[in-house]
Amino acid sequence: MWPLYSEGMTQNSTTPGDLAQAQATQTQADSTTPLRSEAVQTQQLYASPIDEGVADIGIIGLAVMGENLILNMASKGFTVAAFNRTTSKVDEFISGRARGQTILGADDLPTFVSLLKKPRKVMLMVKAGAPVDAFIEMVTPLLEEGDIIIDGGNTYYPDTVRREAALREKGLYFIGTGVSGGEEGALTGPSIMPGGSPEAWPFVKPIFQGIAAKVADGTPCCDWVGEGGAGHFVKMVHNGIEYADMQMIAEAYSLLSGTLGLAPAEIGKIFEEWNRGELDSYLIEITADILSKIDDETGKPMVDVILDTAGQKGTGKWTSVTALDVGSPAATITEAVYARAISALKDERVAASKLLSGPAAQPAPDAAQFTEAVRQALYASKIAAYAQGFQLMALAARENGWKLDFGSIAMMWRGGCIIRAAFLDNIKQAYDADAELGNLLLAPYFAGIMASHQASWRSVIATAVTGGVWVPAFSSALAYYDGYRSERLPANILQAQRDYFGAHTYERIDRARGEFFHTNWTGRGGTTASTTYNV
Amino acid sequence: MWPLYSEGMTQNSTTPGDLAQAQATQTQADSTTPLRSEAVQTQQLYASPIDEGVADIGIIGLAVMGENLILNMASKGFTVAAFNRTTSKVDEFISGRARGQTILGADDLPTFVSLLKKPRKVMLMVKAGAPVDAFIEMVTPLLEEGDIIIDGGNTYYPDTVRREAALREKGLYFIGTGVSGGEEGALTGPSIMPGGSPEAWPFVKPIFQGIAAKVADGTPCCDWVGEGGAGHFVKMVHNGIEYADMQMIAEAYSLLSGTLGLAPAEIGKIFEEWNRGELDSYLIEITADILSKIDDETGKPMVDVILDTAGQKGTGKWTSVTALDVGSPAATITEAVYARAISALKDERVAASKLLSGPAAQPAPDAAQFTEAVRQALYASKIAAYAQGFQLMALAARENGWKLDFGSIAMMWRGGCIIRAAFLDNIKQAYDADAELGNLLLAPYFAGIMASHQASWRSVIATAVTGGVWVPAFSSALAYYDGYRSERLPANILQAQRDYFGAHTYERIDRARGEFFHTNWTGRGGTTASTTYNV
Repeated sequence: MWPLYSEGMTQNSTTPGDLAQAQATQTQADSTTPLRSEAVQTQQLYASPIDEGVADIGIIGLAVMGENLILNMASKGFTVAAFNRTTSKVDEFISGRARGQTILGADDLPTFVSLLKKPRKVMLMVKAGAPVDAFIEMVTPLLEEGDIIIDGGNTYYPDTVRREAALREKGLYFIGTGVSGGEEGALTGPSIMPGGSPEAWPFVKPIFQGIAAKVADGTPCCDWVGEGGAGHFVKMVHNGIEYADMQMIAEAYSLLSGTLGLAPAEIGKIFEEWNRGELDSYLIEITADILSKIDDETGKPMVDVILDTAGQKGTGKWTSVTALDVGSPAATITEAVYARAISALKDERVAASKLLSGPAAQPAPDAAQFTEAVRQALYASKIAAYAQGFQLMALAARENGWKLDFGSIAMMWRGGCIIRAAFLDNIKQAYDADAELGNLLLAPYFAGIMASHQASWRSVIATAVTGGVWVPAFSSALAYYDGYRSERLPANILQAQRDYFGAHTYERIDRARGEFFHTNWTGRGGTTASTTYNV
Repeated sequence: MWPLYSEGMTQNSTTPGDLAQAQATQTQADSTTPLRSEAVQTQQLYASPIDEGVADIGIIGLAVMGENLILNMASKGFTVAAFNRTTSKVDEFISGRARGQTILGADDLPTFVSLLKKPRKVMLMVKAGAPVDAFIEMVTPLLEEGDIIIDGGNTYYPDTVRREAALREKGLYFIGTGVSGGEEGALTGPSIMPGGSPEAWPFVKPIFQGIAAKVADGTPCCDWVGEGGAGHFVKMVHNGIEYADMQMIAEAYSLLSGTLGLAPAEIGKIFEEWNRGELDSYLIEITADILSKIDDETGKPMVDVILDTAGQKGTGKWTSVTALDVGSPAATITEAVYARAISALKDERVAASKLLSGPAAQPAPDAAQFTEAVRQALYASKIAAYAQGFQLMALAARENGWKLDFGSIAMMWRGGCIIRAAFLDNIKQAYDADAELGNLLLAPYFAGIMASHQASWRSVIATAVTGGVWVPAFSSALAYYDGYRSERLPANILQAQRDYFGAHTYERIDRARGEFFHTNWTGRGGTTASTTYNV
């Protein structure tokens, strides 16, 4: 049978004979009806698999991200094979959005694999978890040594570590790659963060860097991240930061709306303005769009009819669990995850709002001054959250033996992805100036912003706290800053308590680190000291 | 060989024949030298295992908790067999602290098991993790159907679920129990939270309730928690709350010390005073002790020479991971875990303190007024943290099919354990009044406290935030309160953003829950909506 494809493959300048032949057949059929639509039985079009591969890459999974990535690849001159478990989706795609592109549909896996040039590159764009393992199992027997499987889903990075090792034993290469940018990014230029088998990278690089977003100077927002699960790990941290970023924007909105009583469109204008300054970023930009959108049905601002419950798909949680595991204080990212959890308890909150009182009404602050203070608070909070994300990457990299290039990561996030922001240039510069930078906050630019913005930051949080406005991420970001810059924290009290009730021992400020002491605080009890001390 | 034991078992009124005989032999040897001390070779004392068990329970693992539990059991008239992998610890214990008690040492596992009455109760007080599995594997072949293994360590509850199921298949029962109270609690009356095989509970109950702490009315701080891992789960949440409790006390100390400039002894006096009011609790009490303690070496307050890095052993982290897994917003507990993580970065903080600026100096508030405000803030924060813990238990119980009795849990925590506090009576009353109480905050007593204390709570946090005092747990607790009592949160912005960039859909306030909408925000891009929506 012949692979499915669509007409007008003019963009593909390197169309091989097989493809040209298929193209002729296809055009004939396609000129009258869409292929494999349910209305028209075109099953007879499927012939046996072709002998020599023609597709640069094959993608399994035609949900929104998969489809858009394929269209993006085709638009850059690559020939792409497409497969989906429910083959009616292949029909729809090939006869619909893929029509006229260098995209070949297949209705079974052997055909799909036969379409691919060697070394074959099979990219999975399926739901993370069991479906990835299922497709790896199905496709592996059809592949040869040196072929490459790519998982472009939102996979938890330990799974990528496991899969890369397992496939390597079979002579196959595996890349786990983060793809960020959502629906539109996938179509027009996502941020791509690949990691896994380094041997596979040269074969995948032209495609990935070809379709990735580009920074102003043309640098693609895609580069090799590292071995094992490094690609998916970095994408996970990207998403964790995204959680914090989104939550902080919501808090800024809430402050302007609750404290100043501004309408969505007015706040939208403020965001538009902010987007021209140091806050310049995709999320600020789309929030301005969102706030100005009117609901067709009611004529009200769109945000006023949207229910206040935010969903989540797990990457923020994974980031938090990883941070807890490596002992990296990514508190603001975690507060943002919990913020979604509390938002989901809508019915409980409605009931609680009738029983739990808030503070007395506060006088409204000066609008212009407060708006500017919120802007500064948002930027300072954002920097603290990014510092947590980079700190987590540094600590986890040390634990996993990855060599991460933080400047390069900042550039991968500079375009295409959800958290793309102008200030990633400052992050890049900070790591260019000092590759061993211990914490983003310590770079002169960021230390300077914290110094200049902190008065506003503190006053906004004080106003929110006094007035009963919910600002978990702003508060947590400031606490991170105040904790990190404290030579001495009251953790001496904690450690004394731990020694008091659990004989956990403590260190002394006047002795070398690693020497542990126990006090018999009460004069009673045993003298046995706990022998383990795990920071 | 004869089991080891020590002289003067007068407390054991039910000494069976075997024990009396052993006792006679022992007394003879023991009257001159301690048994099995390294100086005196008494190996010849060990005979073959006895035929009929005499010990009510056997404990494996003679670290501080194991030893103290054994001494506690013996003091309540139980006969206890003791074993330790390194048998020199058995020697030391039997010839030292156990001397004169109904405690029988064994130098191998078969002897140890032979000492136990049927159904045998073997309690492991070893390091959580692999050692528990190792001892289960070693001891299982020595046991008979209906015998009981108990794990009294700080085990992660999913391990308890697994072990209970595995042992049940072999005809054995398994109890995983939390034991809280630290070194001293174990000796004088801990809080004990057992769960696992319900069939085993009647046999273990007299021992556990016998040695547990007692509430004023005599109720033991020990009752059956539930099946599977319920006991260790509840202990884990206890520890998670303990993390928050300790961190909040440290923050209160920091406020009094930093903002008012009080000396440790002065703050100790304030804590002593607080301990006579609604804050009455073990942790406040020991903090008063700690703050008044002087270092012998330097003559300085003890807390001033203790290094400000707090260790952790994982239970706070597990509580946070579980909260993230079930979507329960236990943010204050997690902030306390991260607070320890940031405290551990001592060298980084010292370096950062030289580069990162704080706010301008603030005028000191009125001392008496501020001290009272901190007290109220601490109590309100504490209530919010406990509310998070109980909410987590409710959500996890639903997921695991446990029927938890929250009033009973409050009573188990009322004595013996680390977080024992007078206000647990109020929690008990709240659940007595309404077993289906959705959130602790909604109970009239607690809603009332929040109403009356919130002005102080807010002003203290505003002062801290303005003055640069690190208060992550206080801030997070208030954010939890303000989030939970909000009928409407700015999560509509988040969900709009998610729909904008990821087609994740949203619900509408004017439509039924479960109906999802997608807006094509830009007018560009595909129309494909993400088909999964996971709150």
